[in-house]
Amino acid sequence: MTIQEVADTLVKLCSEGKFQEATEALYSPDIVSMEAAAPPGGSRESKGLAAVKAKGEWWVANHEVHGATVEGPLVAGAHFAVTFKMDVTFKPQSKRFTLEEVAVYKVVDGKIVYEEFFYAM
Amino acid sequence: MTIQEVADTLVKLCSEGKFQEATEALYSPDIVSMEAAAPPGGSRESKGLAAVKAKGEWWVANHEVHGATVEGPLVAGAHFAVTFKMDVTFKPQSKRFTLEEVAVYKVVDGKIVYEEFFYAM
Repeated sequence: MTIQEVADTLVKLCSEGKFQEATEALYSPDIVSMEAAAPPGGSRESKGLAAVKAKGEWWVANHEVHGATVEGPLVAGAHFAVTFKMDVTFKPQSKRFTLEEVAVYKVVDGKIVYEEFFYAM
Repeated sequence: MTIQEVADTLVKLCSEGKFQEATEALYSPDIVSMEAAAPPGGSRESKGLAAVKAKGEWWVANHEVHGATVEGPLVAGAHFAVTFKMDVTFKPQSKRFTLEEVAVYKVVDGKIVYEEFFYAM
């Protein structure tokens, strides 16, 4: 896939709530995922498909998604950007909030090898 | 200005080649600017308006811009993303190339406080 196709597929799958399918289909085994901030006792960075899938599974298990909008992609060279706006409840605290973030992805040989999320803490 | 207004103004000024005017109008005195990689002997990070202006002036002095496209913005929360595609000649080496990058900006109190550029080296 070209980077435009990877980007369009990511937007399509995430718009349908298929985050884990997007990871399966589009991510490199060597994916590096970078959060805006480290969780308590953790790291900003997750390395490798198993770690990134585990982070995604934790997120899905702990959040109820009421609505989501994915905008973009903007593609330039090996990178593309997307925005996510999600109305979610963090289940452990029954806390409903709006998550708004910019995500940047790098694609090499048709697979996403790097992702970084930008959001205010 | 709202973040949408800051983002739209940045895209407008950069589309017109007015990079330094954009810096003057929109950047915080405490701006932090992050490149994808460090220049030889330098740092990825520039801190403060004087350092960021100096970087911009070096860039303008050393590149001839034949054409530029700015796409976006995509706005989410305190961040927005833009892409730059520029047909430029690096004057010291008379080397013409296409620069394609994703740029992410963070806005606080109507000023850009952080920018980061993503491009393949």
